[in-house]
Amino acid sequence: MKRLEGGICAIPGVQASGARQGKYGLALIAASGSATGMFTTNKIRAAPLEVTAQNLKEGRLDGVIANSGCANAYTGQRGRQDAVKMAQMLAEFLNTEPERIGVASTGIIGRPMDMEKIQALFQEAKGRLRNSPDASQEAARAIMTTDTRVKEMAVEHEGVRVGGIVKGAGMIEPHMATMLCFIYTDADLQLAELKESLQQAVEDSFNMLTVDGDTSTNDIVLLTATGKKKCRIEDFKEALSHICIELARMMARDGEGATKYFETIISGAASIEDARVAAHVVARSSLVKTAIYGADPNWGRIVAAVGRSGAQVDPDSITLSFEGSTGKVTLVKQGKIIEDVLDQAKDIMKGDSILIYVDLGQGDGIARSFGCDLTHGYVDINANYTT
Amino acid sequence: MKRLEGGICAIPGVQASGARQGKYGLALIAASGSATGMFTTNKIRAAPLEVTAQNLKEGRLDGVIANSGCANAYTGQRGRQDAVKMAQMLAEFLNTEPERIGVASTGIIGRPMDMEKIQALFQEAKGRLRNSPDASQEAARAIMTTDTRVKEMAVEHEGVRVGGIVKGAGMIEPHMATMLCFIYTDADLQLAELKESLQQAVEDSFNMLTVDGDTSTNDIVLLTATGKKKCRIEDFKEALSHICIELARMMARDGEGATKYFETIISGAASIEDARVAAHVVARSSLVKTAIYGADPNWGRIVAAVGRSGAQVDPDSITLSFEGSTGKVTLVKQGKIIEDVLDQAKDIMKGDSILIYVDLGQGDGIARSFGCDLTHGYVDINANYTT
Repeated sequence: MKRLEGGICAIPGVQASGARQGKYGLALIAASGSATGMFTTNKIRAAPLEVTAQNLKEGRLDGVIANSGCANAYTGQRGRQDAVKMAQMLAEFLNTEPERIGVASTGIIGRPMDMEKIQALFQEAKGRLRNSPDASQEAARAIMTTDTRVKEMAVEHEGVRVGGIVKGAGMIEPHMATMLCFIYTDADLQLAELKESLQQAVEDSFNMLTVDGDTSTNDIVLLTATGKKKCRIEDFKEALSHICIELARMMARDGEGATKYFETIISGAASIEDARVAAHVVARSSLVKTAIYGADPNWGRIVAAVGRSGAQVDPDSITLSFEGSTGKVTLVKQGKIIEDVLDQAKDIMKGDSILIYVDLGQGDGIARSFGCDLTHGYVDINANYTT
Repeated sequence: MKRLEGGICAIPGVQASGARQGKYGLALIAASGSATGMFTTNKIRAAPLEVTAQNLKEGRLDGVIANSGCANAYTGQRGRQDAVKMAQMLAEFLNTEPERIGVASTGIIGRPMDMEKIQALFQEAKGRLRNSPDASQEAARAIMTTDTRVKEMAVEHEGVRVGGIVKGAGMIEPHMATMLCFIYTDADLQLAELKESLQQAVEDSFNMLTVDGDTSTNDIVLLTATGKKKCRIEDFKEALSHICIELARMMARDGEGATKYFETIISGAASIEDARVAAHVVARSSLVKTAIYGADPNWGRIVAAVGRSGAQVDPDSITLSFEGSTGKVTLVKQGKIIEDVLDQAKDIMKGDSILIYVDLGQGDGIARSFGCDLTHGYVDINANYTT
């Protein structure tokens, strides 16, 4: 698998642009193809997601319009009208139908959209639509809120290209969906194949990511395939999974206030579901997350998190290790506590990337979750978001 | 219902004492009666809980020994032996069987007990066992870890007395159990009646409490009835529920790093289960908790939490209000956002006790959860717990 520059613009024919004014930003993407999406499972679902879900019924998109600054969630009939207006703007410019446009929003919940600002940003961005590496970055930057860096990724694998941009730093616990994520490919595949590939890829990537355990009202991932390249579905799936996992990692690293990134790898679980739930619960534990922040090798909190996860657990079968830039250390081996390794563990935890391995010794279920520490910075960011 | 001083020592015949040395503390309680208990649902269950669960099979206790400083959890065979030794110590002094003693521990997980310290503390505490208000406080203080204040409560209701002490500030998400909590009563009731009363009381109190979403390995609540007073079970249940709810409130107020306390009252839910899960998810949301800390009236986060809770929700039926020392304000009425009330909401949120009312408009399910804010102090405490 070859890594490419250019994010979504690494896919031939995909055009992007973005504009920003204060907290508001607007990203535009133009590319025609078969399209499928996944949405938040939160029952309070934002207006643009309702519109996009409706539009996706025919399985074709010509473009995407997405804003930051206002989630357009919990905004009633007016919110829906505003989302439709956004689709109309881009459709008119691209000379297509509003039903061929995907709409997404991120920002504060329960506030009406400032459509004048959206109009102004649209006027600015539409003339800049282009296929170039900086265009992908411009679009990715336009939808950032508390994100601190642009998150994009592209690969070529057996001739087929897949590229994505993603936005997300807080209110992240995607549960069967994800944050604003737009993925493009030149693969020539059936809509059903695209759907199945996306579901599988999301399951082991965005669905294993948590920043704060709060599932957003606005999570969306859209996949559009321009259909220019014949390819084997296995190759495409491999490339798509790679993109989704890397984008999930980028989101965890850029989690609100995060100073450290960690992955929890559960193996030996009685089932893959057990592995997933255990990996998730460890990544979400406030006590594990604060211990990571403080480089405190308080591994008992990890064992406690696994114990409450609901996964099948036998205390005497657990093996637990930490790995980081200074090496790897085993703290518990089949239930037996290893003495005199806490200093080594502390050194590993001082690094900014930590791998936590927990083998449950119950079967062959494996899963990996992506998370970040819980810090003073997280509290700072979220104690005063509205004002 | 009349409030009494003296915590568990408000019950005639209940003796208590405590001793402390650095992080280690030891509480002793002597009182004979019918006894029942509830334990953590975490599958990694601490050794003392295994011993106590076994001892409770006969439904009688003569005393309780509980320590802070070490959880004696995930300590294998040795942990079990240490818990049995603790029971033996107190049994010998009280001239009874070790099987008539309840044992509990709290502190760091995965470290062996320092039995020399326990012995020393026991020698100090045993001679002080007495029935007096300060003895209840002494015992409550001995089992504190990151707790900042003694938490005890006693009432008299229709002639029957119920009193309890509790310890808990972090790793609190009791799920069908609670933290270290010892409740005494002089009620003369059958063991089955005590069990049923305790389960009901715990469901609406400790099970609706969350500090950080982490279910401990060591949660325990023990109820001992000396049987000196005939009473109606309804009166006893009322008193017991009152004690459990007040103790849950005290724990939320003393949550690690907490500066503000909040209750979430869900009404109009399709079922009581829906109300409970929605109230719980709001109380556990990191985004709600940080907004409370910053007095940020970001009510959209509450709606989002309700939306992801799994409860039956219709966005257009939600009514949401805040109440505090400066008054009450409605922010959303049956899905309609009320304008120009954010300043009033902010004033309420500046207080240290906030009530959040959410009516779902789906049925008549009601529940109330107990929670606290997520603060810099929480991160401070938990980033460096081990060292």
